Amino acid sequence: MESNALLDTALKQIQLVKVTEGAAVYAIDSVSVEEPLEIRIATTVDGIIEYKNISVTMRTPGNDTELAIGFLFTEGLISTISQIETVDRLDAVCTRNSDNIIVVRLAEGVVPKTIALDRNFYTTSSCGVCGKGSIAAIKTVSIFKEFSPKESTLELEVIYRIPDQLRAAQGNFSATGGIHAAGLFDLQGELIALREDVGRHNALDKLIGYALSDQVLPLQKQILVLSGRASFELIQKAAMAGIQVIAAIGAPSSLAVELAKEFDITLLGFVRDQRCNIYHQAKHIIINGLMSH
Amino acid sequence: MESNALLDTALKQIQLVKVTEGAAVYAIDSVSVEEPLEIRIATTVDGIIEYKNISVTMRTPGNDTELAIGFLFTEGLISTISQIETVDRLDAVCTRNSDNIIVVRLAEGVVPKTIALDRNFYTTSSCGVCGKGSIAAIKTVSIFKEFSPKESTLELEVIYRIPDQLRAAQGNFSATGGIHAAGLFDLQGELIALREDVGRHNALDKLIGYALSDQVLPLQKQILVLSGRASFELIQKAAMAGIQVIAAIGAPSSLAVELAKEFDITLLGFVRDQRCNIYHQAKHIIINGLMSH
Repeated sequence: MESNALLDTALKQIQLVKVTEGAAVYAIDSVSVEEPLEIRIATTVDGIIEYKNISVTMRTPGNDTELAIGFLFTEGLISTISQIETVDRLDAVCTRNSDNIIVVRLAEGVVPKTIALDRNFYTTSSCGVCGKGSIAAIKTVSIFKEFSPKESTLELEVIYRIPDQLRAAQGNFSATGGIHAAGLFDLQGELIALREDVGRHNALDKLIGYALSDQVLPLQKQILVLSGRASFELIQKAAMAGIQVIAAIGAPSSLAVELAKEFDITLLGFVRDQRCNIYHQAKHIIINGLMSH
Repeated sequence: MESNALLDTALKQIQLVKVTEGAAVYAIDSVSVEEPLEIRIATTVDGIIEYKNISVTMRTPGNDTELAIGFLFTEGLISTISQIETVDRLDAVCTRNSDNIIVVRLAEGVVPKTIALDRNFYTTSSCGVCGKGSIAAIKTVSIFKEFSPKESTLELEVIYRIPDQLRAAQGNFSATGGIHAAGLFDLQGELIALREDVGRHNALDKLIGYALSDQVLPLQKQILVLSGRASFELIQKAAMAGIQVIAAIGAPSSLAVELAKEFDITLLGFVRDQRCNIYHQAKHIIINGLMSH
């Protein structure tokens, strides 16, 4: 399994008061760390370097490089790993906080369309802002929208095992009750990689950033597992990475279901306690073990 | 109780397949609606009107006016309700989507600092981007940072009752398993108002937007209840509204705890099953019913 580098940075010990039926005791407990990460890009055109502040996100420190490149990819600013020259911490005057600034230097001549980040991403349809327009906008930037995946088989029993496997992989971190996970499994149910964060979108960006670095996109033969609910934003990021199967422990939103249908992504929700809901089943995915009633 | 206007717009019926131990049945179920909302402001200076696109957020339709003005307030763009002239849907060419665009017309001469929205909000400290800088930035824009609340008493038994009351108030919406709630209770445990959304920050912006409209800010004598976890962003918005007590059903993050301490906000987490954790107890709040061990 690819390494989840949260070990030293994800938890913070704090003093608190634990109250149980009126009895109050001082205790030491862990909380998930949340700190801002600023992502900057440096473009080079005709030898002239320009820096641009792209985003500040509240994240759990760890796997920051993956987070930065995953974010640039899922937001449509870059489309291949070869567009990136280097990824570094800022060489700041004040080194204490340079941990929280990542500079992604793009290859000579690569100038991304940063208009996406003005949230026009969701509003480029001629008909104003709406769910349909948001879906259409993603289609215009997704590089995997045209590819035709091969037929695959997914055993129901594999799906049922996933929640326990995810929890086991999260280990101590899940003890805080405050951290989201995005896991990548193969179709036989083996965990390939897991990323965690206080922000569910960050956990997914880290995971996709890892896949982009390892040049394993599109993720046609894997299952994306989300520890919580499935919102539009998460399905959007998954669609950008060519993901074909998404299994969420929690509920999807209306727009998440619509987007999954539009991209023909198999979307499972409430995957827990030997049950699940199938919101959409992609044409090329056969779920084995289902008896119709 | 103030009305939560999600009734007609929050749920969508969809067809899905429910799988239980291998048996698959077609069913109709509800999912929470998620749709983009674009917030625009119109400023008028010397009779000249200028429009500015401020934000696009994915939200559950309902209480959109509260969401828009709550967002402008908690992000520091406006500080009083009198700065707002009107709030309207866009009179769009394409009326189908005008539901998803809100225009807030500010009073003559009011020009907000929109720099906050470039996320420099979190990065204005001279020392670069870090948690401490983020907290300092909020102090610079919060209008209630200097006020001195009176001593208040909060019964532990009131805290214990809150999760059930919140669930009861959420009613059918919580059935989707996909919607967050922000509730306002008085110190005797009576529900004052509840707002819901697929986005937890939106639920809170709606609630604060209601309080701003009703001119009941700062919320010194109320409890803010969060249905899920407490992130930095939620404590930030609460601090902007002068909230003194926050009870979260889920876990707080490290930065949420730090911000609560800095603003001397009582922060309770894991409020469930007759238990809770006290991460910070404000100097002016006495929690009755606690026995020290």
